[in-house]
Amino acid sequence: MHTVLSSGTKEITIGHDQPFCLIGERINPTGRRIFQEQLRAGDLSAIERDVAAQVAGGATVLDVNMGVPLTDEPELLKKAIKLIQSLTDLPICIDSSVVEALEAGLSVYEGRALVNSITAEDDRMAEILPMVKHYGAAVVALPNDHDEIPMEADKRLVLTKKILDTAVDTYGLAVEDIVIDPLAMPIGADPNIVNVAYETIARIREAFGVNMTLGASNISFGMPGRHTINATFLPMAMAVGLTSAIMDTRTPQIVEAVKAADLLLGHDEWGSTWISMFRAKQAAEKLAVEAPAP
Amino acid sequence: MHTVLSSGTKEITIGHDQPFCLIGERINPTGRRIFQEQLRAGDLSAIERDVAAQVAGGATVLDVNMGVPLTDEPELLKKAIKLIQSLTDLPICIDSSVVEALEAGLSVYEGRALVNSITAEDDRMAEILPMVKHYGAAVVALPNDHDEIPMEADKRLVLTKKILDTAVDTYGLAVEDIVIDPLAMPIGADPNIVNVAYETIARIREAFGVNMTLGASNISFGMPGRHTINATFLPMAMAVGLTSAIMDTRTPQIVEAVKAADLLLGHDEWGSTWISMFRAKQAAEKLAVEAPAP
Repeated sequence: MHTVLSSGTKEITIGHDQPFCLIGERINPTGRRIFQEQLRAGDLSAIERDVAAQVAGGATVLDVNMGVPLTDEPELLKKAIKLIQSLTDLPICIDSSVVEALEAGLSVYEGRALVNSITAEDDRMAEILPMVKHYGAAVVALPNDHDEIPMEADKRLVLTKKILDTAVDTYGLAVEDIVIDPLAMPIGADPNIVNVAYETIARIREAFGVNMTLGASNISFGMPGRHTINATFLPMAMAVGLTSAIMDTRTPQIVEAVKAADLLLGHDEWGSTWISMFRAKQAAEKLAVEAPAP
Repeated sequence: MHTVLSSGTKEITIGHDQPFCLIGERINPTGRRIFQEQLRAGDLSAIERDVAAQVAGGATVLDVNMGVPLTDEPELLKKAIKLIQSLTDLPICIDSSVVEALEAGLSVYEGRALVNSITAEDDRMAEILPMVKHYGAAVVALPNDHDEIPMEADKRLVLTKKILDTAVDTYGLAVEDIVIDPLAMPIGADPNIVNVAYETIARIREAFGVNMTLGASNISFGMPGRHTINATFLPMAMAVGLTSAIMDTRTPQIVEAVKAADLLLGHDEWGSTWISMFRAKQAAEKLAVEAPAP
């Protein structure tokens, strides 16, 4: 099953037979105090650096969240999307908890965006899915409802089925345009919590065959060696069926692990991407060694 | 299902609910010309360094192979095992294609060894399994027969069932003392070849619940960035059910990936092993920085 995203000039396909889709997480003011202040003052220049770093790092889609308290989020999100689309041809994942912001973002976006996100809650689906359909976008869906996040894979499967049925039967979306978030939580919270995510991924793949994405960085929250944990988590999730993640695309250790997993899963035939990545890395290292001291 | 190995004083349990079993691959003359010459001259001193490096790196079992052309392999293997058991309390995996060498190794070994290996060939099973039973050892079994290595998971499952049935019904072994090698081959040979290994692992786990081990280093043969490929391969295999590997235990990147996978699979409760590994690493780095120049 293929989920196709696009910008004005570039198309990206997410699928179980495709290289992993790396959605850069960086353009998000959560936990970035200086960035929040800049955005509040109308200064979007940090976005230019974030785009450049993520494109260089290997992102294939960019998540954009403009959730800054005390701002006009819909207006800010419009500006950010226009700016980003002037800087790169990567498709965008429009990320907000505010329905009006999602609508504003979609209204200016050129191409097929990924909308982040809905849940299994009826009112949230009723507000957002008609808009996703209208703009011909795809959507990330979290299998949780008004109650807390379900801790058992069984319950997540039930809610996934509810979301897929509702999106397709009630709102006329194509099933391949629903990307399920199997819900990954920090391993520090409960030793079995990542196992539940792996089980959910494997079972959703088997039962529905849809694409999946998740926020991959908080898995290691509160632990030392976070890059290594994150670089290990993703290939394991890929082995059981994860096809995309909203992730750190600026840390080579993590991106390289994903590319190695692509190779091992047969999604990089004869290692052409892997080998050229290493050639580029070696060339850069050689250049750094040979460069005259400043 | 638990496979228990031991030395005179230490017990190791391999299982789907246990931390991964890291079998150090280093004590093996294949491809080590100098080591071969030393062994031929009766000089076993390199083994002392190999034991120390693998113990320091995090090995939980040590593979010992003394397959040097033009030597008395049974005698050499006996000497090596006695030496290693005087140096460490880690259990040993006795590795040889020569039946007499396996017998010689078992005859001097203190504890429950892992014998490496049998195949699904009737004559090989008839020669080795009674010996495994006699010495109370466990055994690694490869699901291939006289023909070439099967390239489909289906065939590997059939041969696995044959091995388990024969070992239990004909030779009286306990099923938990058979450790299946699902057969991992270099990704450079065929883009789908590692997928077949992952499928085999998942299906053997589901159908038989037995422990599995494999030689993990050749996966990356011929590719650049071999450590990263190997460090990515193992957690993916662990996610689908691999419980052990014969592997490089001297490269921190690879051992750390395995430990991170243990953490994520809930086999390192609250990260106590992970956190102490990082504390030790930081302490060593701090010491290195503070040490006066020689």
